[in-house]
Amino acid sequence: MSRFFSEKYSALTPYTPGEQPRDQHYIKLNTNESPFPPSPLAQRYAAEEAGKLELYSDPTCAALTAKAAKVFGIEEDEIIFSNGSDEVLNFAFMAFCDDTHPAIFPDITYGFYKVFAQLNGIPYEQIPLKEDFTIDIRDYVNQTGTVFIANPNAPTGLYLTPNQIETIVQSNPERIVVIDEAYIDFGGETAIPLTKKYDNLLVVQTFSKSRSMAGARLGFAVGCKALIQDLSTIKYSVNPYNVNRMTMAAGLGALEDRDYFLSNCRAIIENRAWTVDALTKLGFTTLESLTNFVFTKSNAISGKELYLKLKENGILVRHFDTPRLTDYVRVTIGSAGQMAAFIDTTRKILEGTL
Amino acid sequence: MSRFFSEKYSALTPYTPGEQPRDQHYIKLNTNESPFPPSPLAQRYAAEEAGKLELYSDPTCAALTAKAAKVFGIEEDEIIFSNGSDEVLNFAFMAFCDDTHPAIFPDITYGFYKVFAQLNGIPYEQIPLKEDFTIDIRDYVNQTGTVFIANPNAPTGLYLTPNQIETIVQSNPERIVVIDEAYIDFGGETAIPLTKKYDNLLVVQTFSKSRSMAGARLGFAVGCKALIQDLSTIKYSVNPYNVNRMTMAAGLGALEDRDYFLSNCRAIIENRAWTVDALTKLGFTTLESLTNFVFTKSNAISGKELYLKLKENGILVRHFDTPRLTDYVRVTIGSAGQMAAFIDTTRKILEGTL
Repeated sequence: MSRFFSEKYSALTPYTPGEQPRDQHYIKLNTNESPFPPSPLAQRYAAEEAGKLELYSDPTCAALTAKAAKVFGIEEDEIIFSNGSDEVLNFAFMAFCDDTHPAIFPDITYGFYKVFAQLNGIPYEQIPLKEDFTIDIRDYVNQTGTVFIANPNAPTGLYLTPNQIETIVQSNPERIVVIDEAYIDFGGETAIPLTKKYDNLLVVQTFSKSRSMAGARLGFAVGCKALIQDLSTIKYSVNPYNVNRMTMAAGLGALEDRDYFLSNCRAIIENRAWTVDALTKLGFTTLESLTNFVFTKSNAISGKELYLKLKENGILVRHFDTPRLTDYVRVTIGSAGQMAAFIDTTRKILEGTL
Repeated sequence: MSRFFSEKYSALTPYTPGEQPRDQHYIKLNTNESPFPPSPLAQRYAAEEAGKLELYSDPTCAALTAKAAKVFGIEEDEIIFSNGSDEVLNFAFMAFCDDTHPAIFPDITYGFYKVFAQLNGIPYEQIPLKEDFTIDIRDYVNQTGTVFIANPNAPTGLYLTPNQIETIVQSNPERIVVIDEAYIDFGGETAIPLTKKYDNLLVVQTFSKSRSMAGARLGFAVGCKALIQDLSTIKYSVNPYNVNRMTMAAGLGALEDRDYFLSNCRAIIENRAWTVDALTKLGFTTLESLTNFVFTKSNAISGKELYLKLKENGILVRHFDTPRLTDYVRVTIGSAGQMAAFIDTTRKILEGTL
């Protein structure tokens, strides 16, 4: 830290991204990336755009917005795009929280919510998950602050239904509820239709997971026109050209290629079922996941030891070294081949032959 | 504005980007874009990366950083990349300004500085340019706040030498000086070498102009290791994966293709000289520009009228409707053909034949 660094940020603990090793080739099951490349159409559109980079990108993301409005059944002024969903989540913390509107979120959830609150000097309350890692929606009704819920939640994979979300939203007419649906496409049902009915609901999604575009950085938020205008005021005061031309084009291609998207989601869901079944046979207990990862533990080996042994053997998973999570590992669902390798290696670790 | 919008931001006046018309094809001389496509190498690297978007981008930008360190003669921990230079400029406002360290910048300069100050609730002081639009460096020595200077300045195009910059930096050992060199490659000399000598100097540059990558969004800041660490703390608390894979690859290609870069800069400098000469012959007065634009006025026509007439005739330039700037138009230097069309149309407007 330099002696010039503002006191406001000097105590900030930044977010820790998952390991991105460059020293060898791992089977990477640690950052919830897709095992599939982006849609060929997304690739083609992005590559074509690489020849036009001398011109600024469209700050209104007009073409992408028009297509997304059709895909998600909303109006064009009910969506805003961002440089990954992290950016628009931060905009939501800025726009809808302050000293009198603290941020409220589960104690175990996406680690960035706490960082965004601290970054913006926003008071926050972390509500403990229940013993079984579920969210008790009664904890979020009639709240005094702005609610942030990842649905499905991470790293648990557990899911709330649109009815449960609606109960929370309906009970907080004077508070914003932000539902972060990064993992919604792997079996869950989106709350986007509820944004038509409630002016206090903001739904955030990303192209990183189900559309294989983590490396392109594209996220978006859906809500009523006035909420999107608020986020737009922030965007135009931070970085109007926040989405680059290639990513915008890739996003359009990804939305147009619906069959590819659906087929990849189905594959992940199938590989997840196979993986959970195989883990169960190995004596693991796995939370019921509607995401592209599973959260699992074994009485025969600690989370940390399993993580380390897997890493030694070329497979990266994620381990969180905090009291309630330390028994578990979070394993991204990859291709059938990757999951077979993961299960095979795990079996050998348990058998002591690795 | 929704009823939920934080009071902190309710009075915010966002930045107004230049017009990005979609209704017809203009000769676009209004947003200081390059008339040349990005380097073929940049295009190829970016297109190749489009097939690998399923994996997150490298938050450390390692390959790009290594190359940039060599190109700019610095260490790898003395540079940080961002999603356009706007992003890292905002990080600098966050990191190095607060209630006791106000932001100081010229009254006529890049319009985003004021927005960044307001966004972050930072007090700011705007120091008037002299009558001839020059910066008087005596206004910036022994300052009480964090100094932001665009060099060359926009929209004037006027330039301070490294010696003048050093005078400012040297006189403010307890204050950060940020030099925004968006336009430095068109005839100016960068202050980057001074970052070796002064721990209070931050130099910001962009790939948007001289490297034809406005649509890719890539900027960076150079400073001593401690300053870069501060900015990195902000980055990892806002958006660790802020630069996408394709842009990172394009940036690497652009740095590797030094000949293409130098040849384009030379072409802009030649076209600028030709344009200034032609404008002078038409009776215009043009400030001495070391950028890829010129700031020019004619006693025969108001800035606004010229802007409107040019637009009617398919040529976009930028007009700022504020008292000291209203007589002028800012004209981006494009290709030789574009500048010939601009001069020809301007001549006809003055002659009354258009």
